[in-house]
Amino acid sequence: MTSVEKIQNLITQFIESQDFMGVPSELYAPIDYTMRQGGKRMRPTLCLLACEMFGGDINECLIPAVAAEIFHNFTLIHDDIMDEAPLRRGLETVYHKWNSDIALLSGDTMLIKAFQYALKTNELYSQEILVELCKVAVEVCEGQQYDLNFETRNDVTLDEYIEMIRLKTAVLLGSVLKIGAIVASAGDADKRTIYNFGIDLGIAFQLQDDLFDCYGDVKIFGKMPGGDIADNKKTYLYLKALELASDEDKQLLEGYFSLPKGRDDNKMKAVLDIFAKYHVMEIVTDVMTSYYKKSLKSLDKISVSDDCKIVLRTYADHLYNRIK
Amino acid sequence: MTSVEKIQNLITQFIESQDFMGVPSELYAPIDYTMRQGGKRMRPTLCLLACEMFGGDINECLIPAVAAEIFHNFTLIHDDIMDEAPLRRGLETVYHKWNSDIALLSGDTMLIKAFQYALKTNELYSQEILVELCKVAVEVCEGQQYDLNFETRNDVTLDEYIEMIRLKTAVLLGSVLKIGAIVASAGDADKRTIYNFGIDLGIAFQLQDDLFDCYGDVKIFGKMPGGDIADNKKTYLYLKALELASDEDKQLLEGYFSLPKGRDDNKMKAVLDIFAKYHVMEIVTDVMTSYYKKSLKSLDKISVSDDCKIVLRTYADHLYNRIK
Repeated sequence: MTSVEKIQNLITQFIESQDFMGVPSELYAPIDYTMRQGGKRMRPTLCLLACEMFGGDINECLIPAVAAEIFHNFTLIHDDIMDEAPLRRGLETVYHKWNSDIALLSGDTMLIKAFQYALKTNELYSQEILVELCKVAVEVCEGQQYDLNFETRNDVTLDEYIEMIRLKTAVLLGSVLKIGAIVASAGDADKRTIYNFGIDLGIAFQLQDDLFDCYGDVKIFGKMPGGDIADNKKTYLYLKALELASDEDKQLLEGYFSLPKGRDDNKMKAVLDIFAKYHVMEIVTDVMTSYYKKSLKSLDKISVSDDCKIVLRTYADHLYNRIK
Repeated sequence: MTSVEKIQNLITQFIESQDFMGVPSELYAPIDYTMRQGGKRMRPTLCLLACEMFGGDINECLIPAVAAEIFHNFTLIHDDIMDEAPLRRGLETVYHKWNSDIALLSGDTMLIKAFQYALKTNELYSQEILVELCKVAVEVCEGQQYDLNFETRNDVTLDEYIEMIRLKTAVLLGSVLKIGAIVASAGDADKRTIYNFGIDLGIAFQLQDDLFDCYGDVKIFGKMPGGDIADNKKTYLYLKALELASDEDKQLLEGYFSLPKGRDDNKMKAVLDIFAKYHVMEIVTDVMTSYYKKSLKSLDKISVSDDCKIVLRTYADHLYNRIK
């Protein structure tokens, strides 16, 4: 088995070997800038790990894995326009470094480039990969639209929140794993199971992100915690607190989340106090853990030997125990 | 042969039969709204006409033709964000009717939907159609980026302008014709020739648009002429006038095109006077006609009988002699 580290090196080298430039340079420089930033490369890593687990050739999987990574980066560029976000990964966003027109157009170009990469895969399975990539791409847009809708809604349920993060984050993890399985010619049942593994892992991952945003250590997390509270984001933590709180605390919480966006120490302390009073951190940690455990049950069901599952399981464990 | 009218009815009926809705409705309502607006349906019409000319089954061609129409409408939705345009086809733009976030996301979804339609074509040629659609999609983004670049450049050449409209407008006409030829299993030489026919027709069509914008009759054109002059657009007319004008007139013209955007009767009259002094309308009409004639020469070269070319030639003639 190839180690996670070797797989990540292979992906990094492959991405570095790609030429993302072209003319007009105003269109392509932001693509090159984004693709060379690094990041965790979680999606291509999962894709190759699944491929290898099913006995496929990871070199054949590099192109569809990078297609998914380009797609993921396209979503970040367009999300940053909508969020008017100045920074991502500690670097200026395309929106901020260039402008929103360029972020819009270079994002569009990346979405097309993602399909162009997927088209370059072996004809044996390129159709199946493209169908999967289109399906997941539409779902990610749906998830982003739900996220936008939630900003102005006051009746978001916990189930709706899980559905939103399933679409916005988890389905792409499910799909990249499935694409790895497709390249390795896995059976249909295994393809469904590895997809479900990714869904549950992705939901756990996003709940963990919400927890980090609230309780992360600035020294490790690299940014001040509390961004979601400052932005009045209706995360699972907030929705859970609303569900459990007394009428009085509920009113208080809704009041704080109606204030204009922005950091406010009094608000932060008051919200965290309410979260603590109702043990929200512990409850959300439990929910996250149950999604993680559910994902491992899917992994158990897959019809390859336990030895073949070790590297993917180690990587999932690493994601679950990550500190940022 | 099927008449243009019958082909257009077939396209209209097919598009009307499609379901563009979904959830969240905020994402899909703008897609449904856009696709049901009508418009000339020039791209799917050309696609089916080419398919029939080469002896193909136009019913098989409906899906890729609609893929191209969805793609075209995606470009309009995103262009309208960049232009902050309130109206298109006499109706509110998605950007204006909803907001820029929704226009961005529903546009992204349409781009993906265009690929999903293309994926549904016969496996015999779906790969070839997808490669063509991706290629042209990237080129249209490049054209739009050049158009944005030209806004702040003062040294745009006539050749650069033609290259911009080739990418922004003409390549999609070339590609839909080629896709029709692909569905009809035309030979490679014919595919290249019908593509070139579309390129030259598309450039003629865009030059005609520039002429209409300047000299169109408000009663027929449906909008006040002079929008490009009001917007300081560096069209072929403007660039040609700059090339021919005396130093004094050139300075005047550049001065007028440095004014803030907006309608101004004095500016309009002065610019049109300079255009008239240098016979710009006649010159651009000649250039347009030469592109149109060049396109017909390509059509002549295609290896099917003249009888089979009649409907496509009639449609091209109709576009060339259109009054709006």
